[in-house]
Amino acid sequence: MRVVDIIMKKRSGLELSDEEIRFVIEGYVAGEIPDYQVSALLMAIFFKGMTPEETASLTTHMLNSGEVMDLSGIPGPFVDKHSTGGVGDKISLPLAPIVAACGAKVPMMSGRALGHTGGTLDKLESIPGYNATLSQAQFRQGLEHEGFAMTGQTAKIVPADKKLYALRDVTATVESIPLITASILSKKVAEGAQSLVLDVKCGPGAFMKTLADAKALARSLVDTGSSMGKKVVAVITDMSEPLGLTVGNFFEVEEALDCLENHGPADVMELTYRLGGWMLVTANLVPSVEEGEKRCKEAVASGKARELFLANVARQGGDVQQLLNLRGKYRSSHKTVLRAAQGGYIQSIDAWKIGLAGVYLGVGRNTTSDKVSPDVGFIFRKVRGDRVEKDDVIAEVYGKDEASLLPALELSNTAVTIGVNKPAPTPLILEEISAS
Amino acid sequence: MRVVDIIMKKRSGLELSDEEIRFVIEGYVAGEIPDYQVSALLMAIFFKGMTPEETASLTTHMLNSGEVMDLSGIPGPFVDKHSTGGVGDKISLPLAPIVAACGAKVPMMSGRALGHTGGTLDKLESIPGYNATLSQAQFRQGLEHEGFAMTGQTAKIVPADKKLYALRDVTATVESIPLITASILSKKVAEGAQSLVLDVKCGPGAFMKTLADAKALARSLVDTGSSMGKKVVAVITDMSEPLGLTVGNFFEVEEALDCLENHGPADVMELTYRLGGWMLVTANLVPSVEEGEKRCKEAVASGKARELFLANVARQGGDVQQLLNLRGKYRSSHKTVLRAAQGGYIQSIDAWKIGLAGVYLGVGRNTTSDKVSPDVGFIFRKVRGDRVEKDDVIAEVYGKDEASLLPALELSNTAVTIGVNKPAPTPLILEEISAS
Repeated sequence: MRVVDIIMKKRSGLELSDEEIRFVIEGYVAGEIPDYQVSALLMAIFFKGMTPEETASLTTHMLNSGEVMDLSGIPGPFVDKHSTGGVGDKISLPLAPIVAACGAKVPMMSGRALGHTGGTLDKLESIPGYNATLSQAQFRQGLEHEGFAMTGQTAKIVPADKKLYALRDVTATVESIPLITASILSKKVAEGAQSLVLDVKCGPGAFMKTLADAKALARSLVDTGSSMGKKVVAVITDMSEPLGLTVGNFFEVEEALDCLENHGPADVMELTYRLGGWMLVTANLVPSVEEGEKRCKEAVASGKARELFLANVARQGGDVQQLLNLRGKYRSSHKTVLRAAQGGYIQSIDAWKIGLAGVYLGVGRNTTSDKVSPDVGFIFRKVRGDRVEKDDVIAEVYGKDEASLLPALELSNTAVTIGVNKPAPTPLILEEISAS
Repeated sequence: MRVVDIIMKKRSGLELSDEEIRFVIEGYVAGEIPDYQVSALLMAIFFKGMTPEETASLTTHMLNSGEVMDLSGIPGPFVDKHSTGGVGDKISLPLAPIVAACGAKVPMMSGRALGHTGGTLDKLESIPGYNATLSQAQFRQGLEHEGFAMTGQTAKIVPADKKLYALRDVTATVESIPLITASILSKKVAEGAQSLVLDVKCGPGAFMKTLADAKALARSLVDTGSSMGKKVVAVITDMSEPLGLTVGNFFEVEEALDCLENHGPADVMELTYRLGGWMLVTANLVPSVEEGEKRCKEAVASGKARELFLANVARQGGDVQQLLNLRGKYRSSHKTVLRAAQGGYIQSIDAWKIGLAGVYLGVGRNTTSDKVSPDVGFIFRKVRGDRVEKDDVIAEVYGKDEASLLPALELSNTAVTIGVNKPAPTPLILEEISAS
């Protein structure tokens, strides 16, 4: 078998066999197939796509490239959620303890902020002392006691994805639906999830800019998951506006606590309950998403979910007392405010621009070696649909230093559109896709 | 400037600037841009193509990556011919001395056999003693004395092409019209050609299988050449059948001598005169291709072209006496014959299969490190349109060893189609394209 023939076959739009895909992935991870052949193949896949069977083969062989989390002996069901990445998306933080409180186990392996999107691990690590790099034993303990645990991907889990993702990042082959599908699913299956709910973001602040693209990715994720024997539901959600009222690592932890205390922003509450409801459905714990949502609301109302969240913070080394003391006070001293340029109704606040402005402030990072800050970002006082007068404060803006404030403010100013009429409300949840 | 952005731009179908193309080529040759980014860009170019302006930029920056042959002080005009590669294509051998005899200078840098196509250098080197690796001084001497010289590409000429071609070869990105265009033209301009005639082969035995593809490549070569100030004519010729009666290194030298003695096969004579005619036109030595053809025929009839050919053999170290003595006798002792499987008319002899069978015999090579043999190949006794009885000899087949004969014979058997009716003659020259 020659790699060049496999590239040629894909270039011509033909379907690769399971054996050919295995040959490439195994050879690449073993260092026997060079980057330059794989990058050409990736570009051919970008243009010619992959069938559901090819995508399932790719996912399987990526998964088999490394270790799989050993959750044996822990009673399930194991269910997880993955988001394709948004701005102000802190849903994982309240969601994991809520679903755990309802009787499922959530073995959550998350990522870090990159580009305009935030990262769950960075948010958790803004809690003083919190350790988001767990050993397998620590990960199992969290699942056994709180029903969930939060960690980063280890080097041994899906090494093929690390190598492929690094290559895709520098060869303009990231935006390929089968490649995204295999990257997401191989990691989620490796962490031990038996079923999965995917939040596919759609809009200017997301990877998928159009509903058609988001639907195609959602369909690919659901179908590939099914063919691997995993129950997968994809929820396509709007990412035109930042989610909730905060964009910033500790600020978003605060908002997660608000949610767990039943007074979070309406959009964050709505999406958390919906995704939680579906997680309980895919875990076969409830017969319908409505029943699942009801169970999630009870877990919040009873205080059980909040209790599990704080127990997790303590187990993973976080200082619960300091977390609660810092709430509302952990703010960088480098501060400015974003004001309304004119009176009227806010028509939109561009999530993508706010995400990029957040990188200046220290919320996110441009390259994986950049450091992030806990106490920086945006706290919005006004959002889409709100009435403002000229010079009203739209957001408090906190930066890692004085120099970061001006570029972030200039960029976020261009993110806000104000008009005469109150805009009609738009749905947050655009579509839900499950196995056919 | 970041390579990933350039890849993304091409991937999206946008036109790259001259500056961006220069950045990639210079960075790649300098070792600053890795293979894996260039191969992804090449695959994006395969799918999205290049505008004439982009192709001219690519050609120019590839050309500028190395040295240009210094022909200063030698009176011109300098004109060359390039073929995209065929089976039995020995045209360069009689053509260079014919055109030189008509007063043009032919600075011919050629390649070696690869895959099913033969190589001019391998053919010349089948002459005992012939040296096809000349220094610049030797190359100039040939041009000054015989009006032509035959050499291989040196390491200093268009290093970008060597690096890019090696990468294309292993990443399934060879078959791209702008990449082929830039590869051919950069080398021909670097060798000092002021005008150029291109023989674009078309058919099952050629790189371009369809007339549409061949026309697109011909048009790209002519237009890109024009935009670089070179007069270029492309002649699209049929490569369904092998050219002439011989496929084999020394066998083709013999056939070249036959042509120079005015008794070569009709198809080889026709194509040699037509290409020579156009070379004289692009060199501004004659007003029309018909006048050019007439001059070429006179150069053969007078014996001048044959005299220059033998003078070149002697200058480049070849043993003229041995060449003439070996004529008709230099045959491997490992021999078989290809016979007609039935009676009838030969409908076709598939050039591509004959080319591949030739690789078994030792005419060509599969990889650049393979060795070729001088005294092997096919000598056809019958060709398309000829009447045969069952078991008539169609060709003598000579191999580098006994083991090579059977696979070559089996493959060449499948290359021959025999039918009841005499097939209608088909044209050799399909189309001629010059600058508009």
